[in-house]
Amino acid sequence: MKNEQTPHGLSEHFSQIKSVGTITNNLNTKRTITSPFLILKNQHDQSFFVYKYQKNHRSNYSSFSFPRTTFTKKHQPTSPKRRLHKKIMAGSIDVMLRELNLESVESLPDDFDPTAVIKDHVPPVINGDKLGNGKEQVREIVLGRNVHTSCLEVTEPDDDDEVTGEREAQMASVLARYRKSLLERTKHHLGYPYNLDFDYGALSQLQHFSINNLGDPFIESNYGVHSRQFEVGVLDWFARLWELEKNEYWGYITNCGTEGNLHGILVGREVFPEGILYASSESHYSVFKAARMYRMDCEKVNTLISGEIDCEDFRAKLSLHKDKPAIINVNIGTTVKGAVDDLDLVIKTLEESGFTGRFYIHCDGALFGLMMPFVKLAPKVSFKKPIGSVSVSGHKFVGCPMPCGVQITRLEHINALSRNVEYLASRDATIMGSRNGHAPLFLWYTLNRKGYRGFQKEVQKCLRNAHYLRGRLTSAGIGAMLNELSSTVVFERPQDEEFTRKWQLACQGNIAHVVVMPNITIDKLDDFVNELIEKRAVWYKDGKRKPPCVASDIGQANCLCELHK
Amino acid sequence: MKNEQTPHGLSEHFSQIKSVGTITNNLNTKRTITSPFLILKNQHDQSFFVYKYQKNHRSNYSSFSFPRTTFTKKHQPTSPKRRLHKKIMAGSIDVMLRELNLESVESLPDDFDPTAVIKDHVPPVINGDKLGNGKEQVREIVLGRNVHTSCLEVTEPDDDDEVTGEREAQMASVLARYRKSLLERTKHHLGYPYNLDFDYGALSQLQHFSINNLGDPFIESNYGVHSRQFEVGVLDWFARLWELEKNEYWGYITNCGTEGNLHGILVGREVFPEGILYASSESHYSVFKAARMYRMDCEKVNTLISGEIDCEDFRAKLSLHKDKPAIINVNIGTTVKGAVDDLDLVIKTLEESGFTGRFYIHCDGALFGLMMPFVKLAPKVSFKKPIGSVSVSGHKFVGCPMPCGVQITRLEHINALSRNVEYLASRDATIMGSRNGHAPLFLWYTLNRKGYRGFQKEVQKCLRNAHYLRGRLTSAGIGAMLNELSSTVVFERPQDEEFTRKWQLACQGNIAHVVVMPNITIDKLDDFVNELIEKRAVWYKDGKRKPPCVASDIGQANCLCELHK
Repeated sequence: MKNEQTPHGLSEHFSQIKSVGTITNNLNTKRTITSPFLILKNQHDQSFFVYKYQKNHRSNYSSFSFPRTTFTKKHQPTSPKRRLHKKIMAGSIDVMLRELNLESVESLPDDFDPTAVIKDHVPPVINGDKLGNGKEQVREIVLGRNVHTSCLEVTEPDDDDEVTGEREAQMASVLARYRKSLLERTKHHLGYPYNLDFDYGALSQLQHFSINNLGDPFIESNYGVHSRQFEVGVLDWFARLWELEKNEYWGYITNCGTEGNLHGILVGREVFPEGILYASSESHYSVFKAARMYRMDCEKVNTLISGEIDCEDFRAKLSLHKDKPAIINVNIGTTVKGAVDDLDLVIKTLEESGFTGRFYIHCDGALFGLMMPFVKLAPKVSFKKPIGSVSVSGHKFVGCPMPCGVQITRLEHINALSRNVEYLASRDATIMGSRNGHAPLFLWYTLNRKGYRGFQKEVQKCLRNAHYLRGRLTSAGIGAMLNELSSTVVFERPQDEEFTRKWQLACQGNIAHVVVMPNITIDKLDDFVNELIEKRAVWYKDGKRKPPCVASDIGQANCLCELHK
Repeated sequence: MKNEQTPHGLSEHFSQIKSVGTITNNLNTKRTITSPFLILKNQHDQSFFVYKYQKNHRSNYSSFSFPRTTFTKKHQPTSPKRRLHKKIMAGSIDVMLRELNLESVESLPDDFDPTAVIKDHVPPVINGDKLGNGKEQVREIVLGRNVHTSCLEVTEPDDDDEVTGEREAQMASVLARYRKSLLERTKHHLGYPYNLDFDYGALSQLQHFSINNLGDPFIESNYGVHSRQFEVGVLDWFARLWELEKNEYWGYITNCGTEGNLHGILVGREVFPEGILYASSESHYSVFKAARMYRMDCEKVNTLISGEIDCEDFRAKLSLHKDKPAIINVNIGTTVKGAVDDLDLVIKTLEESGFTGRFYIHCDGALFGLMMPFVKLAPKVSFKKPIGSVSVSGHKFVGCPMPCGVQITRLEHINALSRNVEYLASRDATIMGSRNGHAPLFLWYTLNRKGYRGFQKEVQKCLRNAHYLRGRLTSAGIGAMLNELSSTVVFERPQDEEFTRKWQLACQGNIAHVVVMPNITIDKLDDFVNELIEKRAVWYKDGKRKPPCVASDIGQANCLCELHK
């Protein structure tokens, strides 16, 4: 409950306790918590008060003492309560805090343990195939358990809430605290490929509108509050980037990378209904989800140690289904290792295996689809090659407050798709119906501001910083891999889940990764590596535990475990 | 180009002309327009100037005269240009407008016709099975034509844009104009079920964060910038609304109604892989899209004149496939007529046909799923009945700047779904991967502020206003229908496409509809009906054209055409 950000400020005393749970006072009666609490300490007798906002505030706040202390149930001191009440009505959490008579409250004691009072659910977390051998409780995937972690309950307003403004104030306090936690979490984020460095202040004037580009970007609906003019501008830019003429492409702005993959593979299936889906085992999970959703046969292809598709295995898998067309997902940057499949080799393999004219390639460029074009000597994703579609995420390298993506395909394929839609009067070529009209504005704004050159500079910075990180890790004796063309640095998984969560690292098996995005500076990387080195000294101090061997994940050459260093 | 909002203000002179097209001056040379223009009138000689922002601003603006006027190409007056230039550098559109020497510009003439200069593509619009018999050019669905309407091109910034601020200013001007058009369009919106009346000012502080609830709402990912605590609060509220216990439901906040239907039907298919999908012909198109995506057999069931599913036909269709389980889409408010399928009768029909234990019902409550619970005597959507899932849109009745929806299903079904996902370590039960973390905040905020009672009041207002609209239409001799439990008023389609577009009516065949949302007031409805009456007097003045007969759409009793009145 204590907020580490402001060790001596008042705000730590304004503790919003989890809203679902049970509180027990020392008369052993239990109360269900349904609304936030305010914890205050009385300087005179050192007792604690828990002020509960009652549904009907006119019955005043009720207070409980903590079972672990000797303080008994007290009368509430009149003045702070009144002042509090008054300020809640004023509707501003800041004013309230300022006015709360700072002298009358102090820091909570170090041994203050809200979990002793609040019987809250233990937060569950993904374990996956992660190791749970840190000091923390072993985390596991809980399939089928519906656990409410720190959920912020929706409660019914009182009749006179509009008059008193109490509810507004309460929500403002929740939001202010939430904002603070977002600031903190944004600061320590390393593991996901999201560029958190953006400024869309100029667009805040548009947040009040319900902007919806429902349906096709190129066909206006009668609903007038849309942003198609921006969306098509963005699509044009991407079509140009991937070398497809304006009158030969179709595309739209999606909700995320998954929607792009779902769309690309669906188009492939409609072009070749009997086609078999091929994807490397390191493809994004949405590719396999698509196969299942669409009831397509799917062949998983092996990968090289780099994470790239193994075209020898691809050739072998193709030879098993020579009679059926091939639909291939090509990764322009895999999720875990940032590996880029060799598009030219994939095409060559297909043609040599006799699939000319009978294949459809979808390029999943979630992250690197937008970085690769700016890397010298990188193989090119281009519609001048026989590919069918490309997707890229908008919230990753570009940076965007909400997930989004760009999908570009050949217009001829969409025509094929649309002709089949007999039950629809209009062209229904998007996966979703109503579509977020704000995302195109964010993308349009950034593309216009940064342009090709701006992106190029950022890509170079990211690659430079990724090399720096790899260098620092290996000089510290930590096995690490960085694929050419990539800003994803893969290394041994930290032993401690707390550390992993703090830095928000994505992990798989024995490895973790940092995706170096434009908002990740050398300073931040230094902080991270320094802390990791310190922690490792503790984890592996007594020699009982050893750093994991990561040779099978990133190759012997990159592993620095006892055996391979 | 003229903005009716400010008939005498300067801003109407600051016209941003469509950025893709060709402009011809009276020397008959053509120029492609690639960036916004500023149109000014010179008070001294009454000539017009089109100021084009050159890519390299140091070469200054170029101007063209209009071919339809007699004005020849002019030198630009030095002072306004310099002032303009300077102000663009200052970066504020407002300052620029103020400084633009108001005396030197006037209203554009009434016959000013920018389309005569800008050879822009004619905006294509959905025709569907609409009648194109207005005065305007017949609109048609253009399958396969990739048309760029009024697209705002993304251009490369100049090297020194950061220094001059010119680009920022230009984008600010585009956005300011866009904002104005959104205001205007928001004001005249009647046809789509979007509540445009919301105030999320308190949430604007959170727009700067890349909030992403990737994956499952109940399983934390390592990415820390999420809003799961709000999302689960919202889901709890809906589970309570539809009477499913906390530990028995699973759900998530979707991107739109379509995602809800895609999810519900996918869950149905996973529960009954051999199941046949049944849906009334007036179901949302996403239901049929799902059938095709998922390769499911689908039976379209007839509807009654109200738009409800015809359970006699349903029974007949069921009898054709007695050997296979049934997956049924039940509409809680159809898209066009707002008809509510009789859930109890659907269940009864299934049970009488021998499908007990072999059916899965998905309730598509896109709009009315959230209104019905607040209507007295309305049949109840409840998980106490044998239904499998319910979806509702968040941007419709609730109101939200971006499309979103809520999906609630039984936890047991998700367990069945998840067990099959062998290739994933974690539970992958959502359609999308990365998920918008802002939408839960908007919903949480509104639910908390309004509560059940707030929604109840708004629903009552909507129903009252819908009755008022129906009354006004029929007293004016315009055939109209309003289903019980619905706020969707269906009536004869206006003859004129311009009128339809102005009021943003959704049309199908001979009918149009207004969906009365909380932001639609009696005043607005009066404006609309009065204008419709006026227009009809013109359209049908000479007796050559007659109002369409809508008996086959809304029933003889509701039709007021010559034959049926």
